[in-house]
Amino acid sequence: MTKIISSDIDQIKRDLLNLETDTIVIITEQNVWSLYKSYFEDFARIVWVSPDGEAGKTFDNYKLCVDHLLETGIHRNIHIVSLGGGTVSDFAGFVASTILRGVTWSSIPTTLLAMVDAAIGGKVALNSSWGKNQIGQFHLPNNVWICDTFLKTLPDNEWMNGKGEILKYGFLSEKIFSKIVENNHFVCDSEFIFQCAQYKNDITSSDLKESGRRKILNLGHTFGHAFEKANAIPHGIAVVLGIKYIIDNFVEGKAKSNLQSAFNKLIDGLQVEVGTEVSYDRSVIASYVQRDKKKISQDEIELVLLHDVGAPYIKKISMDEVL
Amino acid sequence: MTKIISSDIDQIKRDLLNLETDTIVIITEQNVWSLYKSYFEDFARIVWVSPDGEAGKTFDNYKLCVDHLLETGIHRNIHIVSLGGGTVSDFAGFVASTILRGVTWSSIPTTLLAMVDAAIGGKVALNSSWGKNQIGQFHLPNNVWICDTFLKTLPDNEWMNGKGEILKYGFLSEKIFSKIVENNHFVCDSEFIFQCAQYKNDITSSDLKESGRRKILNLGHTFGHAFEKANAIPHGIAVVLGIKYIIDNFVEGKAKSNLQSAFNKLIDGLQVEVGTEVSYDRSVIASYVQRDKKKISQDEIELVLLHDVGAPYIKKISMDEVL
Repeated sequence: MTKIISSDIDQIKRDLLNLETDTIVIITEQNVWSLYKSYFEDFARIVWVSPDGEAGKTFDNYKLCVDHLLETGIHRNIHIVSLGGGTVSDFAGFVASTILRGVTWSSIPTTLLAMVDAAIGGKVALNSSWGKNQIGQFHLPNNVWICDTFLKTLPDNEWMNGKGEILKYGFLSEKIFSKIVENNHFVCDSEFIFQCAQYKNDITSSDLKESGRRKILNLGHTFGHAFEKANAIPHGIAVVLGIKYIIDNFVEGKAKSNLQSAFNKLIDGLQVEVGTEVSYDRSVIASYVQRDKKKISQDEIELVLLHDVGAPYIKKISMDEVL
Repeated sequence: MTKIISSDIDQIKRDLLNLETDTIVIITEQNVWSLYKSYFEDFARIVWVSPDGEAGKTFDNYKLCVDHLLETGIHRNIHIVSLGGGTVSDFAGFVASTILRGVTWSSIPTTLLAMVDAAIGGKVALNSSWGKNQIGQFHLPNNVWICDTFLKTLPDNEWMNGKGEILKYGFLSEKIFSKIVENNHFVCDSEFIFQCAQYKNDITSSDLKESGRRKILNLGHTFGHAFEKANAIPHGIAVVLGIKYIIDNFVEGKAKSNLQSAFNKLIDGLQVEVGTEVSYDRSVIASYVQRDKKKISQDEIELVLLHDVGAPYIKKISMDEVL
């Protein structure tokens, strides 16, 4: 079970001092480390700085990192601390899950997307040349510290990435929907971010390996991942488009118009801007959906659909129907 | 929980047909596949043939295998079947544990060592340049088929590897000790092999992640692994020497002479030949023990010691004491 901690930098430092280990290994990336090295370097016996972004989630970086840790000398009671966005926590968590057959880890997410989504729930992964996150594990972090100090340096496109997942939560949870749309001046403050993180943590704690309820968190992701890959667009935009695609193509009647209206309200509340320069080339999209991790057999995928806001459900759909 | 099945080739074929999947992926190695391809090729949609031996447990082979599976097209309900010795099941199990965040798998061990030890208990791994099995996971196979047909083609040194682990069981279990020493003509037949496999399965089922009782299975392995690496000797011999080293150096008084006598009886019963051309160079051995996965902090390891046959215990020992 992961502990989500709403905290400032000083609180994080105190908590790091209290971790039960003689060896903290910080795994981070170049950009983040250049900004926050001075805060944390004294706490780590070993630091691994990955290349920025998805380049940090390759087999090559994994091999280099693992060799470095083993060469430096580690043991089973080290504690890995991820410092960075979702690519860093995916990578650090995968290292933690596999080195010496698994060590403990915690996460200090530095992006909105990582705070509300990527750092929560223990999905850890590497990319392969055939798709994102095709190699991975479920390995829960012990602690996730939510600290909005990091958001002061967050670029605009990274805000958008986080908002894409928050829009998803708006469709899954009536409470989060209300928070966003029933306020004339919605602000994505640390209290709201903590609420989103806690929402995800509740779901993933009760269904770590995604055999049931956790599946609803894939809303918008089957087509979203395909759009993301086909168009090289940011994850947040891709998820928003993936949800829109589901509503427009797999929902009918009154539910459809209700959900389209909810979509517009969420877009307004979150101030999300969706570009229109996206290709929906059928054969390209189909080839990516074919490789989706959620495929359950040669012929079927499980798609997350919506009856209404707060009422998601799973439907098995044949690849023929998808195409 | 793994099901251990005492079976012949026809039984294995029937069980493969009944696996609940539309995609069996066989992972094997060149030598084994050349011997048994004709038995099993019709059951697999995908076959991955690794280089023989430890060369199959590298990062490079892992990356190639995973890319091949993803390129061919797989889904979450594939079932991986390992066909080979311990290096193959370690590798196949690690692929199963990490591809698409984990798929099911089963094992057809073809060596004595794999039947009594390596294929049982879900320890799966890759090697790094810094040591064997430094990268890994715990991922139980659904089925392990014990079939002595494969032993007809087993080379002599492979028999020795299996007997090393069986000697270890002789020290851990009074029942197994009796079976070996209280019989003038001990035969390592399929019934005895099944008993050893079941003994390990009972222990690992109740303590998958080695937080308690499972640790006793490391008897002889802390120094054994170091001897193996330092002298490039077979694993079985290394374990036998590792157990002897423990008895000679960490046990005192009457217990020591009792255990030395038990050691000689087991060596006789199992017809184990231990070579003497082994270097115990202190600094070399120490450097390998330093990197042992069982290290629990910078300064300590957990060592499995013996009060008597059937009475193992764990002791935390400082690295100073080891050296």
